[in-house]
Amino acid sequence: MEAGYSSLGINSHPVQLPKSFQSCEGCLLYDTEGNPYLDLQMGSATASFGYQNKRLNQTLKEQLDRLPQLGSQYLHAEKIEVSTRIARMCEKIFKKRGRVHFNVGGAVAVEDAIKLVRNYTHKNAGFAFMGGDHGRTLGTTAISSNYCHRRDYGHFGDRAHFIPYPYCFRCFYGLKREDCGLYCLKQFEKLFDTEYYSFWDSKAGECEFGALYMEPVQGTGGCVIPPKEYFVGLKRVLEERKILLVDDEVQMGFFRTGKFWAIEHLDIIPDIIVFGNALTNGLNPLSGVWATEELINPEIFPPGSTHSTYAANPQGTAVALEVLKLLDEEDYEKKVTEKGRYFLEQLEALQKKYPKIMGDVDGLGLALRVEICKEDGITPNPELTRRVCLEGLKGDLKKNGKSYGLILNIGGYYKNVFSLSPSFEITREEIDTAVEFFDQLMAKCVN
Amino acid sequence: MEAGYSSLGINSHPVQLPKSFQSCEGCLLYDTEGNPYLDLQMGSATASFGYQNKRLNQTLKEQLDRLPQLGSQYLHAEKIEVSTRIARMCEKIFKKRGRVHFNVGGAVAVEDAIKLVRNYTHKNAGFAFMGGDHGRTLGTTAISSNYCHRRDYGHFGDRAHFIPYPYCFRCFYGLKREDCGLYCLKQFEKLFDTEYYSFWDSKAGECEFGALYMEPVQGTGGCVIPPKEYFVGLKRVLEERKILLVDDEVQMGFFRTGKFWAIEHLDIIPDIIVFGNALTNGLNPLSGVWATEELINPEIFPPGSTHSTYAANPQGTAVALEVLKLLDEEDYEKKVTEKGRYFLEQLEALQKKYPKIMGDVDGLGLALRVEICKEDGITPNPELTRRVCLEGLKGDLKKNGKSYGLILNIGGYYKNVFSLSPSFEITREEIDTAVEFFDQLMAKCVN
Amino acid sequence: MEAGYSSLGINSHPVQLPKSFQSCEGCLLYDTEGNPYLDLQMGSATASFGYQNKRLNQTLKEQLDRLPQLGSQYLHAEKIEVSTRIARMCEKIFKKRGRVHFNVGGAVAVEDAIKLVRNYTHKNAGFAFMGGDHGRTLGTTAISSNYCHRRDYGHFGDRAHFIPYPYCFRCFYGLKREDCGLYCLKQFEKLFDTEYYSFWDSKAGECEFGALYMEPVQGTGGCVIPPKEYFVGLKRVLEERKILLVDDEVQMGFFRTGKFWAIEHLDIIPDIIVFGNALTNGLNPLSGVWATEELINPEIFPPGSTHSTYAANPQGTAVALEVLKLLDEEDYEKKVTEKGRYFLEQLEALQKKYPKIMGDVDGLGLALRVEICKEDGITPNPELTRRVCLEGLKGDLKKNGKSYGLILNIGGYYKNVFSLSPSFEITREEIDTAVEFFDQLMAKCVN
Amino acid sequence: MEAGYSSLGINSHPVQLPKSFQSCEGCLLYDTEGNPYLDLQMGSATASFGYQNKRLNQTLKEQLDRLPQLGSQYLHAEKIEVSTRIARMCEKIFKKRGRVHFNVGGAVAVEDAIKLVRNYTHKNAGFAFMGGDHGRTLGTTAISSNYCHRRDYGHFGDRAHFIPYPYCFRCFYGLKREDCGLYCLKQFEKLFDTEYYSFWDSKAGECEFGALYMEPVQGTGGCVIPPKEYFVGLKRVLEERKILLVDDEVQMGFFRTGKFWAIEHLDIIPDIIVFGNALTNGLNPLSGVWATEELINPEIFPPGSTHSTYAANPQGTAVALEVLKLLDEEDYEKKVTEKGRYFLEQLEALQKKYPKIMGDVDGLGLALRVEICKEDGITPNPELTRRVCLEGLKGDLKKNGKSYGLILNIGGYYKNVFSLSPSFEITREEIDTAVEFFDQLMAKCVN
Repeated sequence: MEAGYSSLGINSHPVQLPKSFQSCEGCLLYDTEGNPYLDLQMGSATASFGYQNKRLNQTLKEQLDRLPQLGSQYLHAEKIEVSTRIARMCEKIFKKRGRVHFNVGGAVAVEDAIKLVRNYTHKNAGFAFMGGDHGRTLGTTAISSNYCHRRDYGHFGDRAHFIPYPYCFRCFYGLKREDCGLYCLKQFEKLFDTEYYSFWDSKAGECEFGALYMEPVQGTGGCVIPPKEYFVGLKRVLEERKILLVDDEVQMGFFRTGKFWAIEHLDIIPDIIVFGNALTNGLNPLSGVWATEELINPEIFPPGSTHSTYAANPQGTAVALEVLKLLDEEDYEKKVTEKGRYFLEQLEALQKKYPKIMGDVDGLGLALRVEICKEDGITPNPELTRRVCLEGLKGDLKKNGKSYGLILNIGGYYKNVFSLSPSFEITREEIDTAVEFFDQLMAKCVN
Repeated sequence: MEAGYSSLGINSHPVQLPKSFQSCEGCLLYDTEGNPYLDLQMGSATASFGYQNKRLNQTLKEQLDRLPQLGSQYLHAEKIEVSTRIARMCEKIFKKRGRVHFNVGGAVAVEDAIKLVRNYTHKNAGFAFMGGDHGRTLGTTAISSNYCHRRDYGHFGDRAHFIPYPYCFRCFYGLKREDCGLYCLKQFEKLFDTEYYSFWDSKAGECEFGALYMEPVQGTGGCVIPPKEYFVGLKRVLEERKILLVDDEVQMGFFRTGKFWAIEHLDIIPDIIVFGNALTNGLNPLSGVWATEELINPEIFPPGSTHSTYAANPQGTAVALEVLKLLDEEDYEKKVTEKGRYFLEQLEALQKKYPKIMGDVDGLGLALRVEICKEDGITPNPELTRRVCLEGLKGDLKKNGKSYGLILNIGGYYKNVFSLSPSFEITREEIDTAVEFFDQLMAKCVN
Repeated sequence: MEAGYSSLGINSHPVQLPKSFQSCEGCLLYDTEGNPYLDLQMGSATASFGYQNKRLNQTLKEQLDRLPQLGSQYLHAEKIEVSTRIARMCEKIFKKRGRVHFNVGGAVAVEDAIKLVRNYTHKNAGFAFMGGDHGRTLGTTAISSNYCHRRDYGHFGDRAHFIPYPYCFRCFYGLKREDCGLYCLKQFEKLFDTEYYSFWDSKAGECEFGALYMEPVQGTGGCVIPPKEYFVGLKRVLEERKILLVDDEVQMGFFRTGKFWAIEHLDIIPDIIVFGNALTNGLNPLSGVWATEELINPEIFPPGSTHSTYAANPQGTAVALEVLKLLDEEDYEKKVTEKGRYFLEQLEALQKKYPKIMGDVDGLGLALRVEICKEDGITPNPELTRRVCLEGLKGDLKKNGKSYGLILNIGGYYKNVFSLSPSFEITREEIDTAVEFFDQLMAKCVN
Repeated sequence: MEAGYSSLGINSHPVQLPKSFQSCEGCLLYDTEGNPYLDLQMGSATASFGYQNKRLNQTLKEQLDRLPQLGSQYLHAEKIEVSTRIARMCEKIFKKRGRVHFNVGGAVAVEDAIKLVRNYTHKNAGFAFMGGDHGRTLGTTAISSNYCHRRDYGHFGDRAHFIPYPYCFRCFYGLKREDCGLYCLKQFEKLFDTEYYSFWDSKAGECEFGALYMEPVQGTGGCVIPPKEYFVGLKRVLEERKILLVDDEVQMGFFRTGKFWAIEHLDIIPDIIVFGNALTNGLNPLSGVWATEELINPEIFPPGSTHSTYAANPQGTAVALEVLKLLDEEDYEKKVTEKGRYFLEQLEALQKKYPKIMGDVDGLGLALRVEICKEDGITPNPELTRRVCLEGLKGDLKKNGKSYGLILNIGGYYKNVFSLSPSFEITREEIDTAVEFFDQLMAKCVN
């Protein structure tokens, strides 16, 4: 069988020929020889409830035996139930009534969010964050910061205006959080001071852009955890300027950060939430948006506004419903927060061993980051990051006489960050092992 | 449980509140009371191998027990095998080497096709067909003809130039196929006569647009089956003008029309094929593109060109592989062609009973159409079409003392066409029943 | 002095190095040796009242001695008076109240028309005609058909949709005016039959495009004179679909065709008129738009909506006022119509001598055309056209023992049309001479 | 005569009904009653050589008697001579060979610059400065910062990315020039640090934008004079990133700032210069671009690349030639610099009287600014600015028993700046009078 028939156009990976896997269970992936790899990325934070989660797999199988397919123009009970549960959860959290609309894949759900914004504001373009990533369709590429993803595809007439994310370890303005006085927020607010700053018409009270697209924790950008105060202030500015806030929770939603929505940490209310990934434990690409009633009620967003063949597909909604039940039954806030804190403590302990090279270690729930730097503690070290990642994929780390690999995801503005999104079901022992393996890898690669 | 939390923004349907279903098997859907409905649309031509197809469901379950999830940056055997099989099939059919790239959902695969085109031609915009539908993301909406799908979303800077599809029953030029001399083709070719027709620079030998997007049989447009000669001529013109041809087979690929690709009926070679739906029997949104080596080789479309979390997901590729094996083992060309011919004959027989009202009956393989007109045999009759559809959903058609419904999909430029895409596994008896039910519905609704 | 410091980027001309002239008078240009050239293009139909028109030159000189410059934010009497005279003339002709806004150069006035349209309709794009030319700014290039003018400048997100102009000698549909039944109009109207033809949303009653941009006689397209019935029907369709009609009279306004506005021949009322050229006899680039009160009243188009340094400059308005007085004092409708008819008769007589090569001869007022074809009477012959043009520029045509040149402008979709726009003050003798010279040129070049 | 037929869409002015003038001479405009107004704006810095400049008016009259009009496709001697003189001047200053291309009006010349950029870089969009103003066509509005000028006209797909201008009195970053270390430059350079800042692809070595559009002194923005060091650094960054620099000198070119080009003060070399205004002393809208040979040679920018009817019109080039001769004959660098210094000294003296209210006084040559603030010396005071301006237009300032008005132009990001661009021929006495009048106005209005 030749790989020569596969496009290599998929997201680049540090290995020339990507690693192959044949099975999985819990926190482990197994390669084609059956060797285990402790996975700290879980399919880009999709399989949050563990690989081969018995209960969820069982739900999917039962659905397969009943109604695996159904045209999206028809209804099935789970669609309504999942919508209702998510909308009610939002109502509880935000004290706002809204509705849920499903689609397939995170990017397409973001496209639906853009549609809601354009429909409501009659404005094509938006603000988005440097370091932000919302997908790779043409529409989402226009609001994702990475220019490499646009370069080959000509002109993007709806390109967002990208503003600095409050990424305090690498402050865009070169300041320190201790005494910056939220300078980045002030600079954003300043944009509306005069029409000559290019965005605001004070007479009309209108901004050129209809929305700001954000991630409450930047995922692809390297698990960047922002200070809450920034977003509290930002939301105030947006409201004053009648700019909608779209919260992309595709990677962070459903307790990855220890809250149902990561934006709860920021104490603000979004106009639209985009979700996906963990909702089905990665068993189905089901994604969706929640939007406030004002934006999504059937008067303003009537039947026919959007469509896709697999939107609200019954496999996806069945698993999603089970995930939501599971979240109801157990205190995931506590569970994820505690595991996350423990994991972070271990990493911070390890950081003492590599004080400059592990330039930054941070975490919110089970969204964790280790930023790899040069000896000065700040210059990005993507080469070392890559080396550590590849070494982990070799699968020859030792533990109790057995060989293991360690699967690390590289992210960050400079490709020098390990973004960790381990399973919610990871045990303390597995966390210890992970950190031990990481130590081994560092030891091998640093010199 | 309240429907008030669900967005109604999904594709409009003739019923106010869409019909709910709870299970399915073979050609039947079952409503919440367990009543059967003979389905002639099979989830928008996804479940072509029948609901609850034992073999395919089994494959999916086995995959669930092994490797249900895997980040798209890693490999698994099925991905390579499915790519290879499809690429080799194309090589056999078109005598061209190419590669396959996977994604999730038809629209996103079309977005990947647009990316391949923009990357290769450095041109944003394209030609597309009136009546064509390629998806509802912003990028695919720009090349889909229906203006309603753009109206609420502001300016589309990459809007295609839409040309008439050779829909001979309703010729855009008011001609008859018998003596039109392919006037529509001549009119397209004429566009390149002079720079003042707006598209062509004869000195530079360049067209303003990089590609033409087509469906070999228009799906949403109402299962419109074009004359082959048109496309043979069209391809010649496109080659002369260095315009790529993108063939959207999302609904028609994998033997829906009796050929592996529907474009085989047209005797032309596309530069890009987009596929999806039937590839997984609707069990997974796996979709993809095949493109010629020239457009997709790793030099020109390198790693990082595109990405999505669920691209090439292992559930999808596992089922796809089984579907491809199934297609290898049985002569689907013969099977689909024969069933299609039989179905068409029955419809043609019924047409004699409603000679004007069933204004047009046509079919290619198991892609069939019945166009409902007024007494003049040509004026579209969307009201009657809707009435018949709703009547079928009532579920009170009688057969051997049992009650049934009949599920019909409405399409067409005027929403007056029943586009039929029954299961490939439909039996002669079921076809007879379907036609009988259709006759009952017509009898009830016509007067 | 080196030409090597001049950009050659200006409109291409058949001569490698364009011809130089040093003075002018009446219908004559004089080259650097003082040889006379009978001019049949008059600076692209600007100097309609003759070179060195005593009265107008005198007006300009007096203005130079009084108020040659004034910032456009201030008023001067002539601005108001010219506005009023043009607006009243429109009120008389169209029974509609409107206002006039000035700018500089035809293209920028068209940009102002586009602004009025976008402001009123909230739609970026428009319909325009194949063969139409409205300027070379980026905005006007997007609504001008010639693709060559866009090719080097990347993507045009506001590109118009170009429809065939009723150019009956070369009917886009290959029909004959005698029995076409205005097929081209029917085809335009058909675009609104269904949303799937890409333009119309019947439920909302809205078209994707806000305006249609037209020339009442196509200038650059080769002085194409359309049948009035087409535009009568077109206007009806546009009104039904709420599409504005923008009438570009930059070349044809102010009696070039024998009417104040050329559109008067077509018996329809535009929403916006764009004018320029002859308004100042080419002595100043003053241009402007007239728009109906609905579109241009200060509530909807308030102060600050547009601006340019030389808009309504006092030199331009002074000459314009004098031109308008001149038009009041003499019956230019009669004068231009009679001279035009005489000129056309002479050309038709000459056509008998070159029946096939002078494939088409036509005229409206003093806008005249001679289309040069091959022996079949229809295939465009741009080579011969160019040869004749160059021969005329040699300046060695003989008349009463003196040498002359003949200045012909080449236009047309295939660069095979002489578009004639002689001075309104041309005499019968000069017309005879012009035709005689043309005969000499043809005789020299045909074989 | 009714003003009701004039569009009020022109640039807003502080007076409800703009002031009318009927004649002018030297530095004076005369209203309809013959009262004189000392003009400190000279028709937006067009009539730099004084109203009714005898020599230039005479040149224009002579041209009127010889060749007032000529189609732009033909040549006349002055066109070549003016091109050559400007190109040679640039060659002397910048040590770069280039060519000149003419057009009409500043905005259209900027459009030609955009065309040169898009042709050379194949990139639509660009960087531009907050506070920058390059015209009001659609294309130039997209690169001009003021959002009010876009708001009514829908989506602008080629909108620039606007960066802060080094306007040190109101530093966008809130810093002081003394110790800022050119922070604004560092922030611009930072944009290219990583692909995630949205502009740069380090692997390809390409920026998303093709050019940066600048004014060497911001005109409409309020005569903002930047620190040279900023631009020296900026040019270095642009060269490293292969971004072209377009220098808009429409208001500042031809010695307004005491140098032939204002950019000479900044010690950098632009790729394109746009000029207009003073070139003809406001007697003709002639404008143009100079571009380096690399961008504008006939191979890359061939005949037909652009066009306009009045491009290089003979009246404009005749006056331009005389202006260039005049600049050759007298030392305008010295003259303008000395007068400017004297004027600035007087204003600085006056500032002592209104130390906070005249918040900033600055000047470069005869481009001067007075920024009107509140008592805190920094908060913009547009109300007072407007009051002073209107008071000056009343015409009742006293001098030697005669009544005068004072014409002041309001600009600035907050409409609180008097941008002064007096005649180069203004005398010391007139400067004294102007400052005295300004003092009177301030005295009247401050309380």
